[in-house]
Amino acid sequence: MTTREKVIAFIHRNRERYVQELLEFLRIPSVSAVSAHKKDILRAADFVSNQFRRMDFRVELHETPGHPIVYAEHLGRSGSPTVLVYGHYDVQPVDPLHLWRKPPFEPQLEGEDVVARGASDDKGQVLTHLKSAEAFVEAGGGPPINLKFIIEGEEEVGSDHLDQFLDANRGRLAADYAVISDTSQFAAGVPAITYGLKGLVYFQVDVKGSSQDLHSGGFGGTVSNPANVLAHLIARLRDESGRVSVPGFYDDVAPLAEWERKEFASLPFDEERYRAYIGAARLAGEPGYTTLERRWARPTLDVNGLWGGYSGEGAKTVIGAEAGAKISMRLVPDQDPEKIARLFETYVQQICPPTVELRLQQMHGAKPVVVPTDTPGMRAARRAIELGFGRPPVLIREGGTLPIVAALKEKLGLDVLLLGWGLPDDGAHSPNEKFSLADFHRGIATSAHLMAELA
Amino acid sequence: MTTREKVIAFIHRNRERYVQELLEFLRIPSVSAVSAHKKDILRAADFVSNQFRRMDFRVELHETPGHPIVYAEHLGRSGSPTVLVYGHYDVQPVDPLHLWRKPPFEPQLEGEDVVARGASDDKGQVLTHLKSAEAFVEAGGGPPINLKFIIEGEEEVGSDHLDQFLDANRGRLAADYAVISDTSQFAAGVPAITYGLKGLVYFQVDVKGSSQDLHSGGFGGTVSNPANVLAHLIARLRDESGRVSVPGFYDDVAPLAEWERKEFASLPFDEERYRAYIGAARLAGEPGYTTLERRWARPTLDVNGLWGGYSGEGAKTVIGAEAGAKISMRLVPDQDPEKIARLFETYVQQICPPTVELRLQQMHGAKPVVVPTDTPGMRAARRAIELGFGRPPVLIREGGTLPIVAALKEKLGLDVLLLGWGLPDDGAHSPNEKFSLADFHRGIATSAHLMAELA
Repeated sequence: MTTREKVIAFIHRNRERYVQELLEFLRIPSVSAVSAHKKDILRAADFVSNQFRRMDFRVELHETPGHPIVYAEHLGRSGSPTVLVYGHYDVQPVDPLHLWRKPPFEPQLEGEDVVARGASDDKGQVLTHLKSAEAFVEAGGGPPINLKFIIEGEEEVGSDHLDQFLDANRGRLAADYAVISDTSQFAAGVPAITYGLKGLVYFQVDVKGSSQDLHSGGFGGTVSNPANVLAHLIARLRDESGRVSVPGFYDDVAPLAEWERKEFASLPFDEERYRAYIGAARLAGEPGYTTLERRWARPTLDVNGLWGGYSGEGAKTVIGAEAGAKISMRLVPDQDPEKIARLFETYVQQICPPTVELRLQQMHGAKPVVVPTDTPGMRAARRAIELGFGRPPVLIREGGTLPIVAALKEKLGLDVLLLGWGLPDDGAHSPNEKFSLADFHRGIATSAHLMAELA
Repeated sequence: MTTREKVIAFIHRNRERYVQELLEFLRIPSVSAVSAHKKDILRAADFVSNQFRRMDFRVELHETPGHPIVYAEHLGRSGSPTVLVYGHYDVQPVDPLHLWRKPPFEPQLEGEDVVARGASDDKGQVLTHLKSAEAFVEAGGGPPINLKFIIEGEEEVGSDHLDQFLDANRGRLAADYAVISDTSQFAAGVPAITYGLKGLVYFQVDVKGSSQDLHSGGFGGTVSNPANVLAHLIARLRDESGRVSVPGFYDDVAPLAEWERKEFASLPFDEERYRAYIGAARLAGEPGYTTLERRWARPTLDVNGLWGGYSGEGAKTVIGAEAGAKISMRLVPDQDPEKIARLFETYVQQICPPTVELRLQQMHGAKPVVVPTDTPGMRAARRAIELGFGRPPVLIREGGTLPIVAALKEKLGLDVLLLGWGLPDDGAHSPNEKFSLADFHRGIATSAHLMAELA
């Protein structure tokens, strides 16, 4: 029996215990956005620290002005490569609570799934890498590679103190590979490696027309209505198909490679099922691209919020003093968030009429990222997934943003392997979040195979 | 001493008592929109009824499914004309309460003004006609004309049961003149007769894109964002200058007469002061018309409310399932609200993309009105105002809507005399509503002169 076989056998024998530990982790309501959960955050950090201590890792609880970062390492395999694993122990808030079938921190087994806040995002996924390391420790004479783990507690609130931690520890965080499991498979039974993520630029736009709300009878026709002005501005940001009208917006967009279009087209994507899941009358978007191409590899502009005047019941004849919108742009390589932000500002200022006051406030930025797909790490990950899931992964991108991926590239020079064990309908930020226990176990085995492959 | 002189002298002697009675009326929080104030509504109706009873009017409290209508009459002057006075004893809600300097139903005397909800709209104004009638009863041997009063309690919530009352009582409501004091002077010291009011069409527009809120990263670019669609729809309803783009919208608009443009241009209107009062960066509106022309005699389209997605603090990357707007159009003669409503619906349905669900809900309609300015009633009103205010009135229009004016024309054939004692900055629907006591007393005297002139 090879070491790898022993480790995989150990993993198989310990399935029941793994589930119990996952349930224990999920029972901790470590909601990072809610200060009343500060104690729970610390309990979750302790849970993670203790996991590492039990398998003889060197563990540090790195305090920040926010929530602590758990850093753990198991070194000493000189000559072997080093893998840096990133994950997070904090979870999203649970509202709307009334839509949960059971309390979100009382995990339920429903068929093959465990249902709880954090099941898929990210407790269930990150735990797979701890359990595979443990299996090597218990049954394989220790991990076959050097391992470093960063498990933070602020991912769901913007990872405000992570960059500082990375900057301050560049030397000791040095690694050959980085691994994150915080994405999804393409579909049930279709494991995937995510090689691209969109970036983000987010603005709040406020338009002020008058110092007070005005009666639309008394003043209508004599003054700019900020809600009408705002609608005009928004209408000029993109055309009705969704193509962005901000001058220069597409200048740096890397076109889709031929292999990507082929890869996407070959995926078992059921457009009608996707439409029905969303509940849209029809799908829509930029002409000339398929739904998956638009979703993963074309930049977008969306209104995320809109307000002004009276939105209560009935009719009120008011011209609101102000109106506002939250507007975000999802970026793709090689768009630069700072450059796009300046283009957006310049354009909005230019098209805004002088009859109102305009205020622009940039709220977020994140770089888009695409990692190379033909690297030793990628090849090892493909083999590991094929062994762990029983079929080779497809290559996909995602429309979402994981700022850590660009940060690891920038600060540590690492191309992250995004190995998601979740499913697109896990409801990561929604009520009744779930995670397949079958995928949980496959994830542990795959993680073990990956360590063996990289060694 | 003539009868008229005796009556005017009586009015002068009773100034202090009139103020006390007004304060008593203002202390009753008769907010028609708030069901918790039902008892106060009835107290206000009783207050009005008792006023009439004390001066020997025949009074009826006409119950409706909503709030009661006080009807009072003093007849018996056969051969003399009959005047129908309309007013309302209900008031607007008081929010935002924190902006009031003092509690809205604890009237304060501030300089020449009384500050309280309802001071100008309409308790202070309507009371002038009761006090002039009383003066004739007490000091002039009874009113010189036949008087009929309709004082309703639902004006601020749409006068839902008034039409039915008018229809059911056409015979007994027959009159030669109708008088309403629920408008304003042109400015302090510039009394006015309002001869035109705008009509109204009000819609709520709801756009639904999906069955649930969507993550803008996961789904952006593949589905119509209802907030973006809504902005496009609104942008196509009028151009950036304010000219309405709904086809056919201007077809029936009566052009301004030459005398009207001259009359408006001759008014002491300080555009810069108006702008500063509003607090707008610049005034704006349809090209080719002056500010007063646009305000009073050109139709408009305004967004009165706008909502969709996330409007809280910070950034949320969501595509809201729905977005909505409240949109109203102010109409001028000879636009017909029903025809305009159909044009609006047809157009919006036509320009709305099939990728979303559209719901249109019509909420209000009112006909625009212009009354003839060269009639015996108008001439009597001009003389009365000149006597009561010390200078002749200017002729103005207003941008607001008083549906009762069109109803009185339609059902009883009456051209209403709109004699406003208020001021444009009384804050009728705003915090710290006020009414000048000097104008209150002038209004009482003018009302007495009007009765004498009409007799």
